[in-house]
Amino acid sequence: MDNFTYCTPTRYLFGRGVELQAGAELKAIGIDNVLVCTGMGSVVRSGLLQRVLATLDAEGIVYTVLSGIEPNPTDPKVREGIEICRAGNIGGLLAVGGGSVIDTAKAIAAGVPYDGDFWDFWAGKAVVTHALPVGVVLTIPAAGSEGSGNSVITLLDGLHKISLRTDYALRPKFALLNPELTFTLPPEQTAAGIADMMAHIFERYFSPTADVQITDRVAEGVLMAIIEEAPKVMADPCDYQARANIMWSGTLAHNGICGTGRREDWVSHFMEHEISAVYGVTHGAGLAVVFPAFMTFMARRAPAKGALLARRVFGVVNADDSEAALEGIERLKAFFSSLGLPVTFRGLGIENPDIPLLVSKLHENKGDEIGGYYRLRAPQTAEIYRLAL
Amino acid sequence: MDNFTYCTPTRYLFGRGVELQAGAELKAIGIDNVLVCTGMGSVVRSGLLQRVLATLDAEGIVYTVLSGIEPNPTDPKVREGIEICRAGNIGGLLAVGGGSVIDTAKAIAAGVPYDGDFWDFWAGKAVVTHALPVGVVLTIPAAGSEGSGNSVITLLDGLHKISLRTDYALRPKFALLNPELTFTLPPEQTAAGIADMMAHIFERYFSPTADVQITDRVAEGVLMAIIEEAPKVMADPCDYQARANIMWSGTLAHNGICGTGRREDWVSHFMEHEISAVYGVTHGAGLAVVFPAFMTFMARRAPAKGALLARRVFGVVNADDSEAALEGIERLKAFFSSLGLPVTFRGLGIENPDIPLLVSKLHENKGDEIGGYYRLRAPQTAEIYRLAL
Repeated sequence: MDNFTYCTPTRYLFGRGVELQAGAELKAIGIDNVLVCTGMGSVVRSGLLQRVLATLDAEGIVYTVLSGIEPNPTDPKVREGIEICRAGNIGGLLAVGGGSVIDTAKAIAAGVPYDGDFWDFWAGKAVVTHALPVGVVLTIPAAGSEGSGNSVITLLDGLHKISLRTDYALRPKFALLNPELTFTLPPEQTAAGIADMMAHIFERYFSPTADVQITDRVAEGVLMAIIEEAPKVMADPCDYQARANIMWSGTLAHNGICGTGRREDWVSHFMEHEISAVYGVTHGAGLAVVFPAFMTFMARRAPAKGALLARRVFGVVNADDSEAALEGIERLKAFFSSLGLPVTFRGLGIENPDIPLLVSKLHENKGDEIGGYYRLRAPQTAEIYRLAL
Repeated sequence: MDNFTYCTPTRYLFGRGVELQAGAELKAIGIDNVLVCTGMGSVVRSGLLQRVLATLDAEGIVYTVLSGIEPNPTDPKVREGIEICRAGNIGGLLAVGGGSVIDTAKAIAAGVPYDGDFWDFWAGKAVVTHALPVGVVLTIPAAGSEGSGNSVITLLDGLHKISLRTDYALRPKFALLNPELTFTLPPEQTAAGIADMMAHIFERYFSPTADVQITDRVAEGVLMAIIEEAPKVMADPCDYQARANIMWSGTLAHNGICGTGRREDWVSHFMEHEISAVYGVTHGAGLAVVFPAFMTFMARRAPAKGALLARRVFGVVNADDSEAALEGIERLKAFFSSLGLPVTFRGLGIENPDIPLLVSKLHENKGDEIGGYYRLRAPQTAEIYRLAL
C-alpha cells in the first residue's frame, strides 16, 4: 500500500426530496448570490429547475441561470460563466444536472478568482488553490463529479479533452442526490452512466500497487452492487431502490474510496476522451468499448488484476490468470451488451475509426508513455484501439 | 434504502512517517496552543510522543500534555482536561493514542465551550453544536474514533458507559495513520482491535432496512479484507502491508461508509459496554463474546442478514437461512479463536457473570426496548447474555 492523503468533505444529502434543500444548503455555506448551471433543457421540462429556484427564492438568494451546457462540455461556456460571475459579483455555483454541468460549474469556480486564463489549470500551467464554492443537484449518476475534485473540459481549439484532478479545491461543498430525479433518464443514458461508474472503479483497480486488499475489496463490492442493480433499473426505470443503489454507487465509484493507497491507471479514460472529442460519442458508451479492449491487451501482458476481477466479481473459476482474465472480459462484454451498450467501435457507430489520429492526439495530450498499471507507448495504444474494432 | 446525510470531512494522512506532520496539520487549522492527550505511557517509552512534540516545537505551537488516560476512559480525566483547557486558553486537542485517548480528547473538546456539565451530552440532555478542533495520531486500529463523530465515556458514579454519537461536531479534523506505530501492539490488543472493527461493521450490517445492496457489499468487502489480513498481522506483527490494510479497514469500519442508507443496530455494543463497565474487560474481547451470542439469537428469530453474511463473507453453502447463519457463526467463532480471542464469558475470565445486573444496567441506560435489527426487551437480552456463557 502506498502512502496517501484522503479527504472527502462533500456533504451528501441522499433521498427523496433532497433537492428542496438547495436554498438552505447554499445559505448554510454563506452564498447569497449564485450562478445556477444547467444543461440542455430537461431540468426545465421536468420542473426540477423551477422547484430548485423556488428554494433559492425562499432563502432570499439571488441567482443567474447559465443554461445550455452540452455533453462533453467545452471552454466557451466556461468563459461565459466566468464573465457572468465576475460582472455580477457572484459568490458560488449550483450545478443542476449531470457530469457535464458539474464539471463546467467547477471550471467556472476555478476560473473566477484566477488572474490568467482558466485553461492554464487544465494545461498543467497552474494549480487550483482556491475556487468559488460549488453545490450540486445531481440528475445523472455517472460521472461521479458530485463527489470528486475532478473536471473534464474540452478546449474547442484543437479538440483537447482534458481531465483536471484536484485533491480538494474543486470538491463540491454539498451534493443533493434524489434517486427519483433519475427515473426519466433514457435507457441509453442510464446504461452509459453505469459503464462510466464501473470504468471509474476499473481505472483504480488496474493498479501496479501490491497489497491493497482493503481497497480491492471495497472496489469489488461497489462493482458487484452495480452489476446486481443495473438490470433492475433497465427493466423498471422507476424502481426507486435500484435507482438509489446505482446513484450512491456512482458517487462511491469516483470519490476516491476505491483508490486509496495505490497508483491508479486512467489510460482507458484518456483513450476514450480522444474518441469522444473526435467523434462526439457518449463518454460512458465509449468506455464500454475501450475497457474490454484495454483488459484484453492486459490479459496477454499483465493478467493478474484482470484475473482477480474475473474471479471475485464475475465468479470465473479458472486457475490460469490469462484465461481467467479473458473469461472475465467475455462476461463484462455480455453484461454491457445486456444493457444495450456497444462493445466495439462499430457498435458506437464508427465504422472506420482514424486510429492514427486518436493515437497521435492521445500522446500529444498525455505524453509519449502513459499508464499506471502498464506503461504504454503509441504502438501499444494503437493495438488497444485496434482490439476495439 | 433510507434517506441519509453523510459527510466525513476528516483529512487522513496515511503511511510511514505521517506522525511527523502533526505540527504542520495543527498549524494549518490555526491551532497554536494545544492539549496533547496520551494514555498510560507506551507513547513515551516508544519515543513517539517526543517525536510528535518536536514537530509542535518546530511550528512554534505551545502545548500541555494530559497523560494517564486509561482504557475504558472515565469522566474525571475529561473534567481535568476541560479545566486545563479553560485555564490555559487552549484552542485545540491532539490525541496521541487509541480510542480511549481520542474519545477523551473529543469529550474535552465538547466540554470546553459548553456552559453546563459535559456529561449532559452523553446523558442526552444537550446536543454538541460546537467543539474545539481535534487532531489524531493513531496508535491502535480498533475503535475507529479517528474517523467517527463518536465518543464513549464511562461516568464513574454508577458506572454508566455511554456512547455519544454526533454527525460532525466531534469528527477529527485530521488523523495521522502510520501502520508502523502498530508494530509493537501486543497480540491480544491487536486481536481485540480486529474484533472491535468487525463489530462496527456487524452493527451496521444487521439492519432492518431492505435494498441496501451497495452498503452491504462495501461492508462485506471490508470484512473480507480484515479476515484475510488478520492472520498475517498475528503471525508477523511487523508486516507493514498487513498492518496497513488492518489500519485502514478499522477506519472504514466506523467512519459511516458501511452504514449509509440504513438503520443500524448497536445492541451488541450496548451489551458489551455493560460487561466492560462492570468487569473492566477489553472492549474488543467483550465484543468477540457478545456478537456470536447475538447472532445465534438472531439465527433463530431473524436469520436473513446472518445468512447473507455467512454466504458472502464466510463462503457458507446452505440453502436454509437459519442453518447458514449458524454455520457462519461457527466460522466467525473459529476465526476469533484463531486470533486468541475469547468467545464466551468464561474465556473472558468471568465464570459467573451477574446477568441480571448487566440486563438491568443495560435497560436503565438504553431504555426498555432496544435494537435496530430486532427489538429486544429484558427477557431477550438476558437470553443473549446466557448464550455467551
